[in-house]
Amino acid sequence: MHRRERVFYDRAGGRGPQSGSYNLPRPIDPMMSEPVRIPAEQLRSFIARSFEHVGMPAADAHGVAELMTEADLQGSDGHGIFRLPQYVRRIRAGGINPRPHIRIELERAATAVVNGDNGMGHLVMKFAAETAIAKARITGTAWVGARWSNHAGPASLYAKMPMRAGMIGQYLAVGNANHLPPWGGVEMLLSTNPIAIAIPAQDEPPIVLDMATTVAAFGKVKTMAQRGETMPEGWMVDRDGNALTDPQRMNDGFLLPIGGYKGYGLALVFGLLAGTLNGAAMGRNVIDFNADDRSATNTGQAILAIDISAFDDPAAFRRRVDEVSRDIRNSEKMKGFERIWLPGEQSHAKTVENSAKGVPVAPQLMRSLDALATDLGIEKIARS
Amino acid sequence: MHRRERVFYDRAGGRGPQSGSYNLPRPIDPMMSEPVRIPAEQLRSFIARSFEHVGMPAADAHGVAELMTEADLQGSDGHGIFRLPQYVRRIRAGGINPRPHIRIELERAATAVVNGDNGMGHLVMKFAAETAIAKARITGTAWVGARWSNHAGPASLYAKMPMRAGMIGQYLAVGNANHLPPWGGVEMLLSTNPIAIAIPAQDEPPIVLDMATTVAAFGKVKTMAQRGETMPEGWMVDRDGNALTDPQRMNDGFLLPIGGYKGYGLALVFGLLAGTLNGAAMGRNVIDFNADDRSATNTGQAILAIDISAFDDPAAFRRRVDEVSRDIRNSEKMKGFERIWLPGEQSHAKTVENSAKGVPVAPQLMRSLDALATDLGIEKIARS
Repeated sequence: MHRRERVFYDRAGGRGPQSGSYNLPRPIDPMMSEPVRIPAEQLRSFIARSFEHVGMPAADAHGVAELMTEADLQGSDGHGIFRLPQYVRRIRAGGINPRPHIRIELERAATAVVNGDNGMGHLVMKFAAETAIAKARITGTAWVGARWSNHAGPASLYAKMPMRAGMIGQYLAVGNANHLPPWGGVEMLLSTNPIAIAIPAQDEPPIVLDMATTVAAFGKVKTMAQRGETMPEGWMVDRDGNALTDPQRMNDGFLLPIGGYKGYGLALVFGLLAGTLNGAAMGRNVIDFNADDRSATNTGQAILAIDISAFDDPAAFRRRVDEVSRDIRNSEKMKGFERIWLPGEQSHAKTVENSAKGVPVAPQLMRSLDALATDLGIEKIARS
Repeated sequence: MHRRERVFYDRAGGRGPQSGSYNLPRPIDPMMSEPVRIPAEQLRSFIARSFEHVGMPAADAHGVAELMTEADLQGSDGHGIFRLPQYVRRIRAGGINPRPHIRIELERAATAVVNGDNGMGHLVMKFAAETAIAKARITGTAWVGARWSNHAGPASLYAKMPMRAGMIGQYLAVGNANHLPPWGGVEMLLSTNPIAIAIPAQDEPPIVLDMATTVAAFGKVKTMAQRGETMPEGWMVDRDGNALTDPQRMNDGFLLPIGGYKGYGLALVFGLLAGTLNGAAMGRNVIDFNADDRSATNTGQAILAIDISAFDDPAAFRRRVDEVSRDIRNSEKMKGFERIWLPGEQSHAKTVENSAKGVPVAPQLMRSLDALATDLGIEKIARS
């Protein structure tokens, strides 16, 4: 092995849990210590009673809790119960409307624009996805955009809704903080605008791609800063374009887009489709929801549903997806790689594991959730 | 300037004409010598008479000629008249059907599956785009897939068709040769499956993103091999994952996807959407159209049209796109960058320039086109 050069191939994929350590998946622990496993049901009911306590109707509180727990189950632990204290803080500060009137403002046979009335993004996008599915069932495909929405957790949750209805789903979003300048610039006018695409298979796990348009998500940088680790080259650069590897210096630089100007282009067009097209925030008017608890973010998102039966016998299609999956998984591996993964395969395995064993929750997160319970005067999370 | 490290930022974008030399755009010259400028009309009529000569109906020959010349005008010179000898060779060898019955095989209000009957991809995708536009005009959006199509030139041509009709257009395709293994693998099961998205603006040039899911297109590698140049690290690796920078060794390795496993994921899902969903080739059954002139490629492509008026007043939307464009262009530049470009801005400028001055054609390409004329017994390209 030519160690110096081989580093390049590893680095080309970043060094997140699915890339540099691609063969050795491990959960991200945002709190720097060994997690304890909590049954999903305990998380779900704690999230629901927290939201009910701050004024959300019971059905909505349970709806959000269901999706946030799904995020934790699939290993998207930066998007699950980890976010609860922030969401509660925003609701209490008036930054999120706990009793929104989510509604279609404009529609045609295969499109709709949903006004989320500044409700939780999870509720807005569930409504949007259900609208898209119902329309695609008739017209074959549908595109539903949302404005006045909010952070909705991992992109894959919403791409998977059409998938569970036997369709292909795609989700685009404008991120809730700008960490990316245009290529050749230093002003952070863009977010990590993610895309998720979910495609059902027959006997194989579904193909679920969920990715930011930057090499690393900003949350990963924060995690490394907390841990005192060094980032690999390729995640961030400083304002002069020099590699920035000390995460403590994260505010001196910015994230790098995947493929350089290509990732910048993707972040831009996804932002125009998810934000600008819906009259939602994009570019300069994106609110940093980490810095500001009070202002409505006017988050924009979009969901596309494609009904497979408009193209082919769905089972025949799913069998072809299986074939492609197996061809890829069973193909010859590069030296040093134990396994070739399909997109979504690791989060699928994680869901199976966490459903059986419980969701790993770091002690520090557990303490902050206990503090939240005390603060709200509600029952803490049961330990088993 | 920290030269050693700064190279990293430059390299992150590859070093194509829009990246490393991002500030100094120059046409790719696939033939290694100074080009002469030929009026577009001369190219158009030569392409049309070549196709007519090998049995294509006049209207179809002119339709393909129009699109191939548009590719040359916008600077996509690896996809314009450069491809004519190969297309003619394939038609004569029976690999492409010059008189296809292009038709809708299955449709709903917002979807269609087009059978291209192994005709030229340009004709199939023009038909598909027109179908998508007509449907989206009514339903708000439409997705049209194609099977038994062929190579259709640059992706942006088809994304721009809905755009010219006041819509947003997106095009996906399965590439016509596999140069990309899955992440962690060495078998080239995937192509550089491109995406193009075209979004109209008001007074600014439209936003037109057109990109392969690999850092470099394989054509660029071939060009560097012809020129005896060295590739930057990051374009290709060998089977051990070591950087491959000698383009003469291109067959010892493969292209790298953008963002490592992310680009692999994009290439895969775009392939499933453009190929597998339409019952077209994808993965192992992709035909290498450079190596094989006789076999039908069963190329799959897909076009999505979104009617802006289903979401907002189109002029209001286009003005917001203008604002985002100007915010980005006028934002603070990184040291060493003269200008920040929007996707599609360079090809827009190139179209204006080449329309006025003529399309640059390299002498070596000119000679091969003259040889084609002699071979077919048709009139050569007029020099002015």
